[in-house]
Amino acid sequence: MNLETDLNRFMQICQARAEAALDLRLPAADRMPERLHQAMRYSVLGGGKRLRPLLTYAAGQAVGVPWECLDGPACAVEFIHVYSLIHDDLPAMDNDDLRRGKPTCHIAFDEATAILAGDALQALAFHVLAHDSSIAVPASSRLAMVETLAKASGSLGMVGGQAIDLESVGKTLDLPSLENMHIRKTGALIRASVNLATLAHPSLDSSIADKLDHYAKCIGLAFQIQDDVLDEESDTQTLGKTQGKDRDNNKPNYPALLGLAGAKQKARELHEEAVDTLSGLGAEADILRALSRFIIERRA
Amino acid sequence: MNLETDLNRFMQICQARAEAALDLRLPAADRMPERLHQAMRYSVLGGGKRLRPLLTYAAGQAVGVPWECLDGPACAVEFIHVYSLIHDDLPAMDNDDLRRGKPTCHIAFDEATAILAGDALQALAFHVLAHDSSIAVPASSRLAMVETLAKASGSLGMVGGQAIDLESVGKTLDLPSLENMHIRKTGALIRASVNLATLAHPSLDSSIADKLDHYAKCIGLAFQIQDDVLDEESDTQTLGKTQGKDRDNNKPNYPALLGLAGAKQKARELHEEAVDTLSGLGAEADILRALSRFIIERRA
Repeated sequence: MNLETDLNRFMQICQARAEAALDLRLPAADRMPERLHQAMRYSVLGGGKRLRPLLTYAAGQAVGVPWECLDGPACAVEFIHVYSLIHDDLPAMDNDDLRRGKPTCHIAFDEATAILAGDALQALAFHVLAHDSSIAVPASSRLAMVETLAKASGSLGMVGGQAIDLESVGKTLDLPSLENMHIRKTGALIRASVNLATLAHPSLDSSIADKLDHYAKCIGLAFQIQDDVLDEESDTQTLGKTQGKDRDNNKPNYPALLGLAGAKQKARELHEEAVDTLSGLGAEADILRALSRFIIERRA
Repeated sequence: MNLETDLNRFMQICQARAEAALDLRLPAADRMPERLHQAMRYSVLGGGKRLRPLLTYAAGQAVGVPWECLDGPACAVEFIHVYSLIHDDLPAMDNDDLRRGKPTCHIAFDEATAILAGDALQALAFHVLAHDSSIAVPASSRLAMVETLAKASGSLGMVGGQAIDLESVGKTLDLPSLENMHIRKTGALIRASVNLATLAHPSLDSSIADKLDHYAKCIGLAFQIQDDVLDEESDTQTLGKTQGKDRDNNKPNYPALLGLAGAKQKARELHEEAVDTLSGLGAEADILRALSRFIIERRA
């Protein structure tokens, strides 16, 4: 058994577990208002790499949190992620018709329903953190989870990153500005995915929590660089979304600033930094190490 | 001094207090991303009846919670309310150009910024509840606040009501269906405004909390009926938003179902039920009584 095989197995188990956990926490499709609930379920279920839940489960495993305690946090970050995709795809934003190989929410339903489905998923994320009985930690830790996710999602985190992204269309960003945008746009939620897992272990040594946070910061940026690389290199079918979109939209990206080889090199360096950060941890962190490699080697 | 004078004074004090508290909790306009933060501040500050913060402060006063402990909850419900207005006004939703007498967020800025400003305000609401140091209650009570607000805001509350509202354009709703829509669309957040105040008093007798909850349920519906009445009766200038919009959009409303006189009568009955519910409370609940009357007598 090698790390790659272990990661594949771990990913399959986690993806199935996350799918079931998400399904369980979403309102039923026949519950009123049906169309809204159908749109929420359509966008959340049946696809996606589930990178954020994977990170929550993998970080939890690295610090010894039982899987049962991680379902709620994993779902909460995924609900935030999916709501951001729904809103990002809207005509007034990126105007994308295709996501994960199927029509985007506003195409499959309509724009108003897509806006509301996103809004409701954000509320659901916080409801899960506050309410979910599977999260067996003291109220103060739960509250820290709410705070972490709210900060990562808001105007100084993910939404702020999207706003900077929109403002920068057609502009030339330098490397620090591009990095700053991505640290918010995708990095903040990826860090939250890991940090919710360490918060699920209230007595965890804070230096270990800090290490995992730094790991998450590195792989969050590496993930975005690889996204940019794939946007340059892949075809639409492999990607499950429209290829070359960033370049066509004249959006700043890493290959444009560093060249394709330079971007790949930077992703590799971030992967190495992420793995180095975990040097004090044992085999229980192997999945995190393998996930970091997976992020820079993935093709979709 | 009579109740009306007291209410006027209370409203002025609360509106000024809420304005300052909201200002303090919003990111500065020159903080990056500037345009997003400007849009958030533009939509939140400088207007509105602040009915929800008023209710939080008034309910807090009725049960003896210090004002300082109510600023956070009052801001959280108002952030949710304003985000819902921003999204509601979007072209894909109600397509309104005017709100509180000034251009709506997507007109003053742009659609993408309006979507993101709403999203960020929702996250900010939960961040305030989880983080705000002014909320001096145990973590378990704060967590109950998060849960209450998340439930009131989501697909079974406010957003669900908006979805039902959208689906019912051009349809004939019967009275129970119309009521069900409004109980979610505006009623859920109005109840949350009151319930966050009682949660700020962790040792409060639950029967009193229940009474205030029922009061809030009554006035929430009365508020919506009066909104429908005003939509029929007022002119655009007094209303600060486009008059006759519901009728023009062929939206179901109370005057259409009950007649104008019948709608007014129903609002009066709900006001009386709200006041009756408070019969066990003394003068400390007078503002709540006066607010209930104000809601059915307001002209804008």
